[in-house]
Amino acid sequence: MVDCMKNRYKCIVSYDGTNFSGMQIQPNARTIQGEIEKALQKMHKNDDIQIHASGRTDSGVHAIGQVFHFDTHLQLEEKNWLRALNSLLPEDIVLKEVKRVLPTFHARFDAVEKEYRYIVLNRKRRDVFKRHYTYFYPNKLNFPLMEEACQQFIGTHDFTSFSSPRSTVKGSKVRTLYEVNCRKKDDEIHFILRGDGFLYNMVRIIVGTILEIGAGKIPLRQIPVIFRQKDRTKAGKTAPPEGLYLWKVKY
Amino acid sequence: MVDCMKNRYKCIVSYDGTNFSGMQIQPNARTIQGEIEKALQKMHKNDDIQIHASGRTDSGVHAIGQVFHFDTHLQLEEKNWLRALNSLLPEDIVLKEVKRVLPTFHARFDAVEKEYRYIVLNRKRRDVFKRHYTYFYPNKLNFPLMEEACQQFIGTHDFTSFSSPRSTVKGSKVRTLYEVNCRKKDDEIHFILRGDGFLYNMVRIIVGTILEIGAGKIPLRQIPVIFRQKDRTKAGKTAPPEGLYLWKVKY
Repeated sequence: MVDCMKNRYKCIVSYDGTNFSGMQIQPNARTIQGEIEKALQKMHKNDDIQIHASGRTDSGVHAIGQVFHFDTHLQLEEKNWLRALNSLLPEDIVLKEVKRVLPTFHARFDAVEKEYRYIVLNRKRRDVFKRHYTYFYPNKLNFPLMEEACQQFIGTHDFTSFSSPRSTVKGSKVRTLYEVNCRKKDDEIHFILRGDGFLYNMVRIIVGTILEIGAGKIPLRQIPVIFRQKDRTKAGKTAPPEGLYLWKVKY
Repeated sequence: MVDCMKNRYKCIVSYDGTNFSGMQIQPNARTIQGEIEKALQKMHKNDDIQIHASGRTDSGVHAIGQVFHFDTHLQLEEKNWLRALNSLLPEDIVLKEVKRVLPTFHARFDAVEKEYRYIVLNRKRRDVFKRHYTYFYPNKLNFPLMEEACQQFIGTHDFTSFSSPRSTVKGSKVRTLYEVNCRKKDDEIHFILRGDGFLYNMVRIIVGTILEIGAGKIPLRQIPVIFRQKDRTKAGKTAPPEGLYLWKVKY
């Protein structure tokens, strides 16, 4: 079996997470992995083909550039894989790239950097067209203070306070963030976070905390204290999934 | 009854048409009118309050500035109406303005101009985030030719060929368009149509025809012929609802 599975493909995929119970396959739930594997199965005469993603995303979380790989005995040109799979995928998943890679490539283990973005809609009135794609946060925000808060997350830290205790990670909770930034775009605030790895809910808890700092609910000087406490309950609320995008995975 | 209903309010409303069976109330269907009247009913101790919109929109069609009016015996400040109704409306409908008007004002009969916009996504690959909000049209388009086509719809014409025969309009099908325009915005094309009135499916058939001209399926010189034929089957296909927005109603 291993012998004839000699072709490994790396795929970049975008999805609207709104109507999914997240990335990872689960019984009786519509998941991104489930839909992609269903499309692959159709191309492989009902043989099961398993995909391996760079990581999970939660229900409601979106992706611009999620990456996964799969193995197959089929030999198709990259552009034909792209066309065939896109014609079989539902309208809320689209493949952006298919590339043949060495059989040693692994979408999860070889990722060296991930970028997430988080979009906040900061205005008085809801926008019906953005309700699934931004976090509606009408409170007045001190933007320069939030920019200062961003700076404090950059670098190597133990992110225990900024990750869900439901995390399945057993080892170190030390991670390195290369960039933590927020930008105003009309009535939106775009957060950009790049790092070597992210713990469960880490982006959403960091963003939730920075928003509470901007709203005057948590003082800026509290951040180093929260880091030291290593206690999730000391940080801000977890921002909801609809504002979060897995933007890019680097190898 | 009429006596105590002396307050008339004009409302501007925006909605995401995706999950509605259109504007107009219908039994066993989720409609914009139905949801708004439900919210009004809650504010009136279960009394039925009927709303009167500037016109219908079909299932899947969006609104940025639809207008309706209603009568009530309640006396509330405009901003309190706005807040109260928005707190009762579902997340895909939002009121943008409530204004007290003279009891002679009528949202439909007093409208003097309407603006519709139609957004086309013109690129090779689908965008999962725009699937409900643009018409995905991957064909190559001759944009200058489409600009010329737009010009031919401006002015006073009999739009029989460019309206659905299912129209309930019995009288004249002569309408005046003040503006018909298309603009490129990255990989989108935005059509803007302003006129004194629009027949059933008129915007969608005009846009569908202009797209077929841009794609080389209908010659530009055919437009005056189609106008003269007064036959819906001679024009292009009806563009789908998801690209259409009722943008503004003027009084």
